[in-house]
Amino acid sequence: MSLSNIRIVLIQTSHPGNIGSAARAMKTMGLSELCLVKPKRFPAPEANVMSSNAEDILDNAIIVDNLQQAIADCHVVIGTSARYERNLRWETFDPRYCGEFVGKALSKNKKVALIFGRERSGLTNEELSMCQHLVHIPTNPDYSSLNVASAVQILSYECRMGAKDIKPIRHELNEEVVSAEDMEGFYQHLETALIEVEFLNPENPRYLMPRLRRMYGRINVTRSELSLLRGMVSAFQGRKFTRRNKES
Amino acid sequence: MSLSNIRIVLIQTSHPGNIGSAARAMKTMGLSELCLVKPKRFPAPEANVMSSNAEDILDNAIIVDNLQQAIADCHVVIGTSARYERNLRWETFDPRYCGEFVGKALSKNKKVALIFGRERSGLTNEELSMCQHLVHIPTNPDYSSLNVASAVQILSYECRMGAKDIKPIRHELNEEVVSAEDMEGFYQHLETALIEVEFLNPENPRYLMPRLRRMYGRINVTRSELSLLRGMVSAFQGRKFTRRNKES
Repeated sequence: MSLSNIRIVLIQTSHPGNIGSAARAMKTMGLSELCLVKPKRFPAPEANVMSSNAEDILDNAIIVDNLQQAIADCHVVIGTSARYERNLRWETFDPRYCGEFVGKALSKNKKVALIFGRERSGLTNEELSMCQHLVHIPTNPDYSSLNVASAVQILSYECRMGAKDIKPIRHELNEEVVSAEDMEGFYQHLETALIEVEFLNPENPRYLMPRLRRMYGRINVTRSELSLLRGMVSAFQGRKFTRRNKES
Repeated sequence: MSLSNIRIVLIQTSHPGNIGSAARAMKTMGLSELCLVKPKRFPAPEANVMSSNAEDILDNAIIVDNLQQAIADCHVVIGTSARYERNLRWETFDPRYCGEFVGKALSKNKKVALIFGRERSGLTNEELSMCQHLVHIPTNPDYSSLNVASAVQILSYECRMGAKDIKPIRHELNEEVVSAEDMEGFYQHLETALIEVEFLNPENPRYLMPRLRRMYGRINVTRSELSLLRGMVSAFQGRKFTRRNKES
């Protein structure tokens, strides 16, 4: 089933029991792929106890050093955010819309990552900037202390609901959408070029790159379009080098 | 808030930790009324630990001897069922429909009870017969081992979504999307710049601009993003002009 194309990514989880509970939550909803970014302690007996009989998910969990590695092969990257502020530059979904959105992505054979931050502090700004979209669970404003496994439970449930009634879509661009890793390469390239032309000041970057990421992240860039973008940025850089060569 | 008219009823819960987790789950979604039917052990330190800061819900929990007492003053009584059998005796909802149904009941000032059975064995036939409706959470058929607090979490979430005062978040960037005319200005600007850096040959343009149009056209560029794009292209051009000025 397509739900196997969802990867749940937990970042620096402090309590191994939460990892176990998250695995159980995933499995009840038919999800199977768990990725742990620098877990504080794992494997751990508490994780196994809390996983109930979802130990297979723990056994198969991938452990990586950073978010970039966790999402390298993913096409859709959605971060969870405990706060919902309208002034953020991300598209923000509620869990229901997120489930529908993920359901559609799965029907196009896309790989989806759902990112959950640290128990206390959530996601860093750098991690947020790697997300194409955010999902906010609309908790009680007076008490938004949602356990990380509970957040996994709600979103896994909504993904299951969203995947259930996928209608086939006949008119699709067949071309492959590039992965987060490919886009990362483009962003690095663009950033370098923007620094070269002094549009971006590394000492005072403001929100330039996050804003560009938000914007380009919405495109769902295809393979040939990525070449076009890279070529364009190279051309803008190349001009400079050409002129420099002429001067020398 | 009307969510205070929902009573969560837990029947003969074995693990006090689950009672605490259920209280936390309720509070994150704005529910407050907990009723325990013959809990095995309560109050208990594990319950308080797992409740995080939702101890007020535990402190105010009502403890009764049987389901009949728990639901005496309720107008709508909904039981949770791990199995979904097309049963002639009950209307059975999924959590989403349950949330909408509860939302409607709350808007008419009705008191609603949601009943959760024992960890292992659920509700007895006698208890089921006291329910007007059933709700079934559509779990993975190969692994339906949903923790009782997780079930409370999902249904509390759906009740919150179903209550009228929660607005859905479909925040596709609030900001105004620019017009086709504005985009046309950008495309002209980009085309000029690409000719300047000789990425685009006006004698042999191939499909470069149509491809770029198709790609950027998918973004739904906002006002501030258009400024960013124009600024970026100008910067790529400006570098050239700066250098030209220096040369002259």
